[in-house]
Amino acid sequence: MSQKFARRMGSVHRSFIREILKVTADPEIISFAGGLPNPALFPVAEMEEAASRVLSNTGRSALQYSTTEGDPALRQWIADRYRTQKGLDVGPDDILISTGSQQCLDLVGKILLDKGDKVVIERPGYLGAIQAFSFFEPEFVPVSLESDGPDLEELEAAFKDGARVFYAVPNFQNPSGLSYSLEKRKAVAELMDRYDVVFVEDDPYGELRFLGEHLPPVYSFRTGPSLLCGSFSKVAAPGYRIGWVVAPQEIRDKLVIAKQASDLHTSTLAQAIMRDYLQHNDLDRHIERIRECYGRQRGVMVKAIEDCFPASVEVTRPEGGMFLWVTLPEGTVSMDLFDIAIERKVAFVPGRPFYVDGSGENTLRLNYSNSDEDRIRVGIGRLGDALTSFIG
Amino acid sequence: MSQKFARRMGSVHRSFIREILKVTADPEIISFAGGLPNPALFPVAEMEEAASRVLSNTGRSALQYSTTEGDPALRQWIADRYRTQKGLDVGPDDILISTGSQQCLDLVGKILLDKGDKVVIERPGYLGAIQAFSFFEPEFVPVSLESDGPDLEELEAAFKDGARVFYAVPNFQNPSGLSYSLEKRKAVAELMDRYDVVFVEDDPYGELRFLGEHLPPVYSFRTGPSLLCGSFSKVAAPGYRIGWVVAPQEIRDKLVIAKQASDLHTSTLAQAIMRDYLQHNDLDRHIERIRECYGRQRGVMVKAIEDCFPASVEVTRPEGGMFLWVTLPEGTVSMDLFDIAIERKVAFVPGRPFYVDGSGENTLRLNYSNSDEDRIRVGIGRLGDALTSFIG
Repeated sequence: MSQKFARRMGSVHRSFIREILKVTADPEIISFAGGLPNPALFPVAEMEEAASRVLSNTGRSALQYSTTEGDPALRQWIADRYRTQKGLDVGPDDILISTGSQQCLDLVGKILLDKGDKVVIERPGYLGAIQAFSFFEPEFVPVSLESDGPDLEELEAAFKDGARVFYAVPNFQNPSGLSYSLEKRKAVAELMDRYDVVFVEDDPYGELRFLGEHLPPVYSFRTGPSLLCGSFSKVAAPGYRIGWVVAPQEIRDKLVIAKQASDLHTSTLAQAIMRDYLQHNDLDRHIERIRECYGRQRGVMVKAIEDCFPASVEVTRPEGGMFLWVTLPEGTVSMDLFDIAIERKVAFVPGRPFYVDGSGENTLRLNYSNSDEDRIRVGIGRLGDALTSFIG
Repeated sequence: MSQKFARRMGSVHRSFIREILKVTADPEIISFAGGLPNPALFPVAEMEEAASRVLSNTGRSALQYSTTEGDPALRQWIADRYRTQKGLDVGPDDILISTGSQQCLDLVGKILLDKGDKVVIERPGYLGAIQAFSFFEPEFVPVSLESDGPDLEELEAAFKDGARVFYAVPNFQNPSGLSYSLEKRKAVAELMDRYDVVFVEDDPYGELRFLGEHLPPVYSFRTGPSLLCGSFSKVAAPGYRIGWVVAPQEIRDKLVIAKQASDLHTSTLAQAIMRDYLQHNDLDRHIERIRECYGRQRGVMVKAIEDCFPASVEVTRPEGGMFLWVTLPEGTVSMDLFDIAIERKVAFVPGRPFYVDGSGENTLRLNYSNSDEDRIRVGIGRLGDALTSFIG
């Protein structure tokens, strides 16, 4: 007989992007579909030195069980950075280390969301959050993302309608590449304070700004409860699976209980190597190299798009991060374009899975961090050809 | 105002053992409370060589994102071991790597348990499973654990009453140290097949047998759905957070979806170092050293108990694993003994949290893996004094 699964499994689906990535395994395909950092920038030699130091000096403790909250010195490093770079009043005890920032989303769902609770998510929104929260069967309330942040009228309407959790990626959002303006950050914070909304601010890309000025997190404008999630995946390496969340004590205490039940703690060894790497190297200099590289790759992609795409196609021009967002003319379906593109050996992610309301059929996401400049030029050329034959 | 949390948070509690461990941070206290492997046995030098090989030879891929299912060569190694050592028909594709075997319990709860579903758990039962499952609000059905396995009449009654999931640790159980006999393994498997029950067999300690004969897992006697969870924490090192689950395809597919939403994948780097260590070293020889050491420590503890404890106190005599289980005379409360023991600078874990029905007040758990022989003798002497003054 067929296995009986929990009812919540009816709300969740195999990742569409995973399926896409299987199609793009063909090495002849130039893929802008994934969301991988450029591995050429990983500080491999420095990490090898760090691993050697950790295992020769503190091997026994690095291989042992450790606390659920995470490595104290690593949390201290993160707190120091928030204080010096953003002027935030964050201490090590405000931080919980997570198994990648994806785990923060699972833990947030676990402790905050009952079935049917309204959660505001950007439209389009981050797929990993949609997947993590879906297990707790909330009602997603999509709020349109404009070029400078969420539509404030829609946002207020959602809060008036009872939504008490808002998840967002205000810097170089995945999938759109868009960022909130300073004015919108303040307005969004004020609105959430007024309606007593918990903000879950996910900021994996904030450090990857190659144009314009760094802006303070929405977190810094809140008086009400705010969570700030971060990650080493985009600034150092994702293979560690180390993220974190800054949270007020009442919420953090519950997150710790949920994390302990989920995986006891994040890898002691991975945390120790990352901490040692950070203590012995200049992360800012390393991030500068990433910014410079991604800025160049983004520039090449935008230029190639301007040269190759039909004029009816719109594209965002992000000032940081890893993604461009493409809007095709109304009525076209990017999934149909996908099949044509694969024939021409180029891949992207159709935008629809990022819309909880089933819209967005004419959108798609392009990643520029994981292809070198030549492949970007060739790949965008192929996609331009596909687009021309698709929309004429 | 006070934060509103999900209703499920009413079913979960901060770990009692965590609180206990805080009390025992005093270095003068000899603690038998934790559940840590002996760090003197960690293969630190070999792990350092493995880390160096991985980062110098395949650094870029070891630091990148990887698949949710886990490192293919690591899964192959695990499958090969099941085939050669236990004769199980397991291939790499049957295995999902998890962030410690604790994560398997969270994922199992996520995909299988609706609120109010009946789950059978041993009495006493593993606290980590109680905590992980509690987030999904099942009804726990405790079944008494006898010296050779569960009470079969109680087990059948639970199945007749509608329980369709059974979680158990048949080898050197945490907390009791008890193991299932061959006859009980077969009988339990047959009973589950008859009632179409999913078995979640957790086997972190099976390799740590220092007395008697290895017995096949209950899994090997099933025709119905069975999950077999394993871990490198007790045979190599827990700081990696690498466990796994063998599961039939229909269940495994859902576990993969749940894992992706939970943390995308287990640390690529941790998996790569562990895999390289396993490929370049003889794990069996290493496990032999652990067995020899724990067997000696267990012998010293049992001998000291026979010398120091009042005759009215009962103790299990496990043939492997890391724990002894102590039963005080009826009517006594081990939590009261705990306070006396702490005054005498010795600690243990009171047994009650391992009982989902609130019983077990006169029981306690002792760990012998993480103290050397001298400390075991001194600590058990102190505990004997405490017991003598406690129960007279």
